[in-house]
Amino acid sequence: MSELVDNFADRLLSAIEAKGAPVCVGIDPRYDRLPPAVTAASDDELSALRTFCMEVLEQVAPVVPAVKPQSAYFEAYGAPGVALLADVIVRARQLGLIVIADVKRNDIGSTAQAYAAGHLAGADAADAVTVNAYLGSDGVAPFAEAAAANGRGLFVLVRTSNPSAAEFQDLADVDGTKTYEHLARRVDQWGQADGLIGQCGFSSMGAVVGATWPDEARALRKLMPRQLFLVPGYGAQGASADDCLASFDSTGRGAIVNASRSVIYAHAADAHAGKDWTQAVADAARAFAEDIRQAVDRARGSSAGDAPPH
Amino acid sequence: MSELVDNFADRLLSAIEAKGAPVCVGIDPRYDRLPPAVTAASDDELSALRTFCMEVLEQVAPVVPAVKPQSAYFEAYGAPGVALLADVIVRARQLGLIVIADVKRNDIGSTAQAYAAGHLAGADAADAVTVNAYLGSDGVAPFAEAAAANGRGLFVLVRTSNPSAAEFQDLADVDGTKTYEHLARRVDQWGQADGLIGQCGFSSMGAVVGATWPDEARALRKLMPRQLFLVPGYGAQGASADDCLASFDSTGRGAIVNASRSVIYAHAADAHAGKDWTQAVADAARAFAEDIRQAVDRARGSSAGDAPPH
Repeated sequence: MSELVDNFADRLLSAIEAKGAPVCVGIDPRYDRLPPAVTAASDDELSALRTFCMEVLEQVAPVVPAVKPQSAYFEAYGAPGVALLADVIVRARQLGLIVIADVKRNDIGSTAQAYAAGHLAGADAADAVTVNAYLGSDGVAPFAEAAAANGRGLFVLVRTSNPSAAEFQDLADVDGTKTYEHLARRVDQWGQADGLIGQCGFSSMGAVVGATWPDEARALRKLMPRQLFLVPGYGAQGASADDCLASFDSTGRGAIVNASRSVIYAHAADAHAGKDWTQAVADAARAFAEDIRQAVDRARGSSAGDAPPH
Repeated sequence: MSELVDNFADRLLSAIEAKGAPVCVGIDPRYDRLPPAVTAASDDELSALRTFCMEVLEQVAPVVPAVKPQSAYFEAYGAPGVALLADVIVRARQLGLIVIADVKRNDIGSTAQAYAAGHLAGADAADAVTVNAYLGSDGVAPFAEAAAANGRGLFVLVRTSNPSAAEFQDLADVDGTKTYEHLARRVDQWGQADGLIGQCGFSSMGAVVGATWPDEARALRKLMPRQLFLVPGYGAQGASADDCLASFDSTGRGAIVNASRSVIYAHAADAHAGKDWTQAVADAARAFAEDIRQAVDRARGSSAGDAPPH
């Protein structure tokens, strides 16, 4: 992958500046939620998913810097679904989108190396993946090494957005330090390994930090000053743009907010009734980007609506 | 999958009794470790992997009750690799083997449902998968529901076998209870959900407990009396058969020990020098099964070498 010798963190921040909004659209294709116009014109579920995903990419590419395909919805269709995911990744990158493959992979040693070889190297691999670190350093190092070698990135799950996130992530030791805080400190260390820190000062090893827990996100922003936060939970999961601000630094950088269902299934929302579904996706992506852009602008004290520096 | 209305825990214990040894062979195909006879006769890496995996299944099927394909080594080859994994699963089940797909998947809600649909339902799906529970109950329930509905199983990562396992898994709270012990208590509860407990008394929700940490395994055996333990770490990772005993109950049931490299790459070991590689695999599988069988027999006080009850 000699075309990707540059640093992932630099590439992501540059894409965010170019599009003017730190946002990411999640590609979570479910057949039972597709627009009727798509299912009616398709012979089978997987071809409907293909039509849908490719059109969503066309609609969001002019508006957002990144997409996050969710591997589970492709794996549900076995190897043909995995082949579609590879095609989606290739097409997204052709359209200039940064691709974060949400795979939450985890293993150790040569097994983790094999995952990294499959998901962080090669022409149909993503720019970055999500990684679960319950196995400790052994489970993260192979992904970090592959990321550095290939100009790619990873986002380690630190504090997730779901209701039961606290069950294990918030267990506190005798000093009151929670498991996810211990993990955050490790991510801060791991993220300084050779080849990960970009010219922007951020690391290509980022962190997943749910928008649904702004107090935790504020604390994590301090513990992980060099991490780019991938922030799920906006929109359908209930977090507002203001809730997301806790993940940004004081200059309005350092995070990218994800929305999935509220954008890609916008056709089903009252606000977009009567529109062609593709127009609904484009409009929802623009509204999402504008909502986050304005919140970030407000937070850093500049007048709302100003475009960030290019 | 109407042919699988029976319970996974019952099916696994029955297979262990039929073969006379609680062992599982890990299918971790790496091109750079394949026997020269296989690579010389193959046009490309993936066809070499196919030849190797299918032959390993033939050799181990008469000896062991279960195999554990490691998804990472297949995913390294993209969709064609995933298609091969599906073929391996189908062939293993044709040969009467229980298949535990080592995928360590994790996510929440409808995303976890999609993973479960892809990996725990359908003709080319495994009998069970491994699951990472860092996301809490939300991340485990969809897999458990799919397992119960389809007569399948899951093994939750509790205490893994790798050197850095302690980093997060052993963090202790004010009472001294470690994260993996909190998780074990949850697994005990989750594993009692509808449809999971078999007539054997064990749950179709098992636990991954590394053989490299026998003290922890002994404590976990008490915390999770209904869990079947999937025990990695024997052989190449350094644990002995006696180390594995901590995961069994007093009747010699409740665990299945995995070995991967020491069996499937037996051709490279001095002990098997000069043999055809397929014979080396068969001999190594038999030696592995015998080593564990004898250790379990010693531990439950019967004379070594007696076959378990059929």
